[in-house]
This record gives sequence, structure tokens and C-alpha cells, in this order.
Amino acid sequence: MGLTLGQLAQQLGVELRGDPAVRVSGVATLQCAQAGELSFLANPRYRRHLAATRASAVVLAPEDAPHCPVAALVAANPYACYARAARLLYPQATLAPGIHPSAVVDPEARIDASASIAAHCVVEAGAVIGPRVYVGPRCLIGAGVSIDADSRLLAAVTVLAAARIGKRVVLHPGVVIGGDGFGMAWEDDHWENVPQLGSVRIADDVDIGANTTVDRGSLDDTVIEEGVKIDNQVQVAHNVVIGAHTAIAGCVGISGSARIGSYCALAGGVGVVGHLEICDHVRVTGMSMVTRSISEPGTYSAGTPLMPNSQWRRNAVAMKRLDALARRVRALEKASENK
Amino acid sequence: MGLTLGQLAQQLGVELRGDPAVRVSGVATLQCAQAGELSFLANPRYRRHLAATRASAVVLAPEDAPHCPVAALVAANPYACYARAARLLYPQATLAPGIHPSAVVDPEARIDASASIAAHCVVEAGAVIGPRVYVGPRCLIGAGVSIDADSRLLAAVTVLAAARIGKRVVLHPGVVIGGDGFGMAWEDDHWENVPQLGSVRIADDVDIGANTTVDRGSLDDTVIEEGVKIDNQVQVAHNVVIGAHTAIAGCVGISGSARIGSYCALAGGVGVVGHLEICDHVRVTGMSMVTRSISEPGTYSAGTPLMPNSQWRRNAVAMKRLDALARRVRALEKASENK
Amino acid sequence: MGLTLGQLAQQLGVELRGDPAVRVSGVATLQCAQAGELSFLANPRYRRHLAATRASAVVLAPEDAPHCPVAALVAANPYACYARAARLLYPQATLAPGIHPSAVVDPEARIDASASIAAHCVVEAGAVIGPRVYVGPRCLIGAGVSIDADSRLLAAVTVLAAARIGKRVVLHPGVVIGGDGFGMAWEDDHWENVPQLGSVRIADDVDIGANTTVDRGSLDDTVIEEGVKIDNQVQVAHNVVIGAHTAIAGCVGISGSARIGSYCALAGGVGVVGHLEICDHVRVTGMSMVTRSISEPGTYSAGTPLMPNSQWRRNAVAMKRLDALARRVRALEKASENK
Repeated sequence: MGLTLGQLAQQLGVELRGDPAVRVSGVATLQCAQAGELSFLANPRYRRHLAATRASAVVLAPEDAPHCPVAALVAANPYACYARAARLLYPQATLAPGIHPSAVVDPEARIDASASIAAHCVVEAGAVIGPRVYVGPRCLIGAGVSIDADSRLLAAVTVLAAARIGKRVVLHPGVVIGGDGFGMAWEDDHWENVPQLGSVRIADDVDIGANTTVDRGSLDDTVIEEGVKIDNQVQVAHNVVIGAHTAIAGCVGISGSARIGSYCALAGGVGVVGHLEICDHVRVTGMSMVTRSISEPGTYSAGTPLMPNSQWRRNAVAMKRLDALARRVRALEKASENK
Repeated sequence: MGLTLGQLAQQLGVELRGDPAVRVSGVATLQCAQAGELSFLANPRYRRHLAATRASAVVLAPEDAPHCPVAALVAANPYACYARAARLLYPQATLAPGIHPSAVVDPEARIDASASIAAHCVVEAGAVIGPRVYVGPRCLIGAGVSIDADSRLLAAVTVLAAARIGKRVVLHPGVVIGGDGFGMAWEDDHWENVPQLGSVRIADDVDIGANTTVDRGSLDDTVIEEGVKIDNQVQVAHNVVIGAHTAIAGCVGISGSARIGSYCALAGGVGVVGHLEICDHVRVTGMSMVTRSISEPGTYSAGTPLMPNSQWRRNAVAMKRLDALARRVRALEKASENK
Repeated sequence: MGLTLGQLAQQLGVELRGDPAVRVSGVATLQCAQAGELSFLANPRYRRHLAATRASAVVLAPEDAPHCPVAALVAANPYACYARAARLLYPQATLAPGIHPSAVVDPEARIDASASIAAHCVVEAGAVIGPRVYVGPRCLIGAGVSIDADSRLLAAVTVLAAARIGKRVVLHPGVVIGGDGFGMAWEDDHWENVPQLGSVRIADDVDIGANTTVDRGSLDDTVIEEGVKIDNQVQVAHNVVIGAHTAIAGCVGISGSARIGSYCALAGGVGVVGHLEICDHVRVTGMSMVTRSISEPGTYSAGTPLMPNSQWRRNAVAMKRLDALARRVRALEKASENK
């Protein structure tokens, strides 16, 4: 069980300072780790816990290594190195291939023999499930959907609209891919639904968090490029395009036909208005609304700071009169200039 | 397969400029359409794509018709006309009536012979499912729930609390209707749950998007009137009333007992405080919070514009001192007046 | 059927003013109640409906009792007293113990004989289901999960990551407990997932609303303490700690490793940034973002007030120049001082 520090250092390709024969079998925080466990130091705010750690070894940066009271795995990027170490110590459970007898699988679905379809799944006609795909309990794979090798749908995932899912994609519980977009046309005295006919394309190595929804396109597809990471409770509307390696935190809402660049980061609760473009390498801070296209990389923000309610109430009154205030200041300036 | 332009023009009741014998079998955007496909021009931002379209025909407004390089279906409201054309070209799949053998249906449920109950559904006692209703895979129709003719629950929908669902209602995957409202009373040192005893009434022609939740009323019902369209990830709390033909975009949250008028539009991420009233014909722009009743039709907004983070940080400091700034300006004005 | 007012007064421990033999069998609002129904007056805004009520009795505060036209149950805390009365009049349905034949239960799961497992549930190996637990239709109880006595998972709930759920916990439809946290490390040119190895601990008497998600911890657990009430569509990220008896309204998002105190209240749509602490007895008003730790009890707010759009547009322009405006005022003050 576990690995020696020597084995770890070799497999991670990093320097070990300490006894290579020491064995670790799990990971824990600096504060909680016990003998036999590996810890890591990546966020400076936890540096104060290094001196007292009881971990058998710590993954850390070169500048922290001299202060490490135990064995050290010295990495330029300790957090990424820790992530790889944790994957070595906690390998994913081996897949049990096959189809659970309670699953309902259409005879016209093609399921690779190495894939695993869990209890109470439904797989409709024309679906294609690739090698080593895991479809957890209570998932629905709709007609014509394809899921490529090594992807995992953890539980209660719904995929419709003949969506195409890439390799090594992870869909967390409650995810809905391929629901209808919010498309309607006002006619005389009521809304007419506009048929939603596009699909969803999700590239390799995408993760999508619990209860997140990604709508099908109205005509063209909704597209999520490779390596995109999406958190829980996010809404991705029809015909959105999200560029490669962009990260989208919880509760974000992206309106229809918005195009988000690669290597972007939208913090929690951000809203993006429809039909606009955000270029690559843009960061938007929490709960900001993006109302116009962004063509310059950088960090963008909106919102007012948190205040005690009594202070906020006074300021809120002034906010409603802000334009008038600016005009009053202009008048004072003019009066002052004229003197 | 498909329809001739002559057939389309007749069924849509619009003027055709072009060869009535040309046949179209699908729809696509102006940019992507190929021969044999119908396109449309409704949003002026796409007008620049008209000249180069390879569509066989385009649905468009009279003022755009002279610039159409191919056959034109000329409509006063091209988007609504396109929607109807798309429905003609992509008719809904015929329903296969019957109950899938994996569905669990209580003997005391009443299911119309023309309805379709898909795999892994659960239908509890006293539920009533009307003619031509489609209950997709993995839905739960709770005790006493009724669903009227031609409604469609696409997949993984949960309906509880003896909710009554009208005709032609569409519930997208992950929708929860009739969960308990957030009702509790503080007693001494803890919250006591207040029993939620009301139901939910959803009128005809309502659409509700993926993973949206509509709570049951505490005593009276939560009510969604006819023709209301609700997008994904929306929260409708107990005893809310949403007036007819109102549209509610993604990620909106409506607090308990709020009453929203008819023909309103709440943009994405809007929040509505509880126990207030919004009159008919009100629009609220994205991510605004409605904190007071609105009695005048019109468009309402809140929020700060997006800025580069460095600019925002400076302004945010000033926002916290805005009331003081207003008082300083008043003092300057007084000093100026006294001179 | 029902209870006499004398029985109710005795069981609730409150004073009855009226005929103890009168019988009530249901509850309704002051406006809708009929003979044989009990109503209540807790919110002053409904006081105007008291005089005309047709209820057989009303639960109300001592100061309202003189104005009650019918029998009165006089309580210091009428809303909590009403809640208890409603529970007496609408006792929870008796549980039918046993496992529905369509449920898929691993032989290595331990299910108490008094528990009820409904149709189409999946219970994996090592799960422990306690006495009188109700697991409604279409739930998934993952490997190693434990659920203590008298808890109720209403429908379509997913519990993973060996989460431990306390006594009398209520999980509404679509809840996901124990999905992976949003943890990843940037490596060279892409995100690497950081294995999420912690669990979720939910204490006694917690309620969690429909489609809310609670992620598993990355190493330590995500913790929800006793008596916490969480509404619908809420996101609780990995390693969050929510203190006892805190109430969290709909659409709130709480980022990773945030610690929220006891007896707090977060209104709808609030966002909490990660790695900060909120002390006990803090209230945050709707749609505010908490960007820094709060160490003083009290009420906090952010945001701009709702305005007619034309007014908002003018003010929004001024908001972008607010810091400059403050500097201009300072210049005017200096000029004035120098005179």
C-alpha cells in the first residue's frame, strides 16, 4: 500500500530532500496530516502551519524547503505537483465493464465492451458510448448522443440533442446537456417557441459541475472547447462558445451567443450578456456583469463594496442622485473658474 | 421530404418572391445555410451576411427583401414567421403511446391511453396524465399531480405537491415543481419548519427551463399564468404569482409571495424581493435587484458598469464615501451661495 | 378528524379565548379561511384582514387578540405557534417501511427495517440507512454514505463521497451532496484536476432546498452544522463550514473554504468569496457580495438601488468617474480653503 518517497519523487520528476525509503499512503493538510501521510504547501496563508506539521513529507516550493521539518518534495509548482501525487496515491477505481441489468438500453445504441453503464440508466437509440466510459447511476443518454473514451458521467446526468462529448470529460451529478435554448418570438399577443435545432459539442478534458446546464444551439451548436472547467450551478445558453482552458466558477450565467475566449476566468456569480465577445486572457471578478465585448486582456470588475447596512443606505440614496451630483460639482467648478 | 417555397408561403400566409417550386428541407443561419435550406434575417446585426448567403430562401422583413440574393419569404415579423416555418420543416416526432415496462405506475394513477410514459418513470397514486402527454425518461409524477393534454416533460422532471399542470406545457430536464417553500419560524434557539401545504398551478403554454425550481405555496398556491416562459436555473419561491406572457431569463430568483405582472421581462440574474408587486409591462435589466414594488410600466435597472479592475478599485473606495461626498458638495454650494 | 380548540390550546401550551369545543381540521390564510379552519396573524401587513376573517380561530399575539372577531389562540410567537398547530393538524404520512422492488440495493448496504426506500432508488455498497429514514423515488445513496434516523430525501436526491447525514435532515428534490469541489492546478498550458478526497458532514435538523449542491471537501470535510436551513439553487463549495442555525436563502453561492458563523442569515443571491470568515449573528442583504471577513455582528449590504433605466444610465456614467469626481471635490475644497 502507498508509495515510498523515492518512488514518488521519481514518478513526479522532482527533487526529494529526505529518506527515499519512507512510505506514504495518503494525503492531508499540513495541520491534520499524520505519520504516513503526504501534505503540501502551495498557498502562502498556510505557511505558518509548516513548522508543526506531522506529515511524513511535504510537497513545496524551493524557497520553502529550508523551513520544512520533515522530508520535502521540492517542486516549482507545488500545487500541480501535489495534484499528481494525490492521483498516484488515490488511483481511480478500476471500472467494472458491462451494463447493469436495471439499465434500459436501446438495441440501436452502440456501447463499447469496456464501458460501464450503471443502475437505472437509460440509453436511447443511436447513442454511442466509447471505450472505458463510466455512466453512473440514473443517467440518461439521449438519442444520437456520443461520448468518447474515458469520460465519466457520475450520476443523474442528462445528455440530449445528439450532443457530442469528447474524451476524458467529467460530468457531475445533475448536469443537463442539450436542453432547449430559451428561444422565442413575440407574435401579436404571445410568445411562440422557436424550434431549437442545434446541438452541443464538448471537447476533450472538459469538467462540468453539479446541476450545471448547457443548452443546445438554436441552429449552430453550443461549443465548449478543450480543457474548459466549469463549476456547479452554471447556466450556458444556446450558441455560446467557450474557448479552450477557460475556467468558470459557480453560479455564472452566460447568455445566448456570447463568445468567451481561451484562458479566461469568470469568478463566481458573473453574468455575461448575450451576443458579445470576450477576448482571450480576460478575468472577471465575482458577481460582475459583462455588458459589452471585451477586446483587451486583463481583469475587469463591477459592483459595490460591502458595507454596514446603515452606511449602505445613506450611500444608496446618493447613488440615485450621482449624475446630479456630478453636474453640481461641474457648476461649482465653473463658478470657481469664473472668479 | 421538405416543403416547396410555394407550400411554405401558403401555410405561413406570407408573400413569396421567388420560384414556388424550389424545395427546402431544413433551416440554417445566413452564413451556414446551403442549397435546400431556409434561412432568416431578424436581428439587424446579421444583415451583413445576407448578400453572401447560399440558402435557397430567406425569411425577412419587407425592407430587407430588395437586398435578398435568393428567394424571399416576406413577413412583417420575420422571427416569428421563421419559428413557424421551422416547426413545419421539423414536425415533432410522433408520440409512441404507452407505458414503458420499466416505469413504476401506481394502479390508482389515471393515464390517458394516448400518453407516453418513458423508461424509469415513477407515477404515484392519484396522478392524472392527459391525452398525448409525453413523460420522458426518469420523471417523477407525484401523488395527486395532474398534467393536461399535449404537455411534455422531457426528462428527469420531478412534480410533487399535487401540482396542476396545464395544456402544452414544456418542462425541461431537472425541473422541480412543488418542492417545499423556504418557510420557517424562529422559536427560542432554532428554526421550526412551517408546514408547506399549498400547491402549484401552471397554466397552458408555459415553458420552464432545465433545473429550474418552483416551490409549492405555504397555504395558497404558487401560480404561473398562461404563456409564461421561464429559462434555466430560475428559482420561483412559494406563493409567487407570475402573470401571463411574462418572460424570465436564466438564473433569476423570485422570493416568496412576490407578484409579477403580465407581459413583463426579467433579464438574466435578476432578483426579486418577497412580498412586493410588479405591474404589467415592466422590464428589468440583467442582475438588477427589485427591492420595492413597481407600479409604472417601463424599464428598470440597477448595478454598476464593468470597468478595468484598477479603475473599479478606485471607484469602489469612493462609493463607500459617496454620502459624505454629497454632503461635502452641499457644503461647498452653501459656501458659494454665501459669498 | 381535526382537533378541538381546547385540544390545540393544551397541546400548544397557549391561552384560548373562545369555545374549546369548536373543531378545526385545516389551516388557511385570514382571507381564505372558512369555518372549520384555523388561521394566523404574524405579519403586520396582513392585520387588515383580521376583522373580516371567516376562520373558526386565529393564532395571534396578545396585542391583536382584542380585535379578533372569532376564537383566538394567544401566543407570544404566533408564527412559531401556528407552525406547530399546522404540524398537529397535518401529521406526516406514516412511513411504509421496506424496499421497493424496483430499487437497486447493494447487498453490502445496511438498511434499517423501519426505513423506506422508494421506486427506482440506487443504494450502493457500504451505505447505512437509519431508522425511519425515507428515501423517495429516484434517489442515489452512494457507497459509504450514512443517513441517520428520521431523515427524509424527498426525490431525485444524489448523495456521494461517503457523506454523513444526521437525524431529521430533509433533502429536497434534485439536491446533490458530495460532488467534487472545483479544485484544479494550472500546469504549463492546462488545468490539472486536484483529486477531491474529503467528504460532507451534515448535522441534525438541517434542511436543504431543491437543486442545491454541496461539494465534498478537497481534504477536510465540508461541514453544515445543526439546524441550518438552506433554500433552493444554492451552491456550497468544498471545505465550506456553515455554523449552527444559520439560514441561507435561494441562489446564494458560497466559495471554497469560507467559514460562516452560527445564527447568520444570507438573503437571496448573496455571494461569499472563498477563504474568509463571517462571525456569528451576521445578516447580509440580498445579492450582496461578501469580499472580506466580517468580525462584527450586524447587517451588511452592497449593491445599487433599482432605478428607471434612463436615470440609471446617467448615474452609471457617473459611477465610472466617481473617483475623479471625489478628487474634483477635494480640489474645490482646497481652493475654497485657500481663499
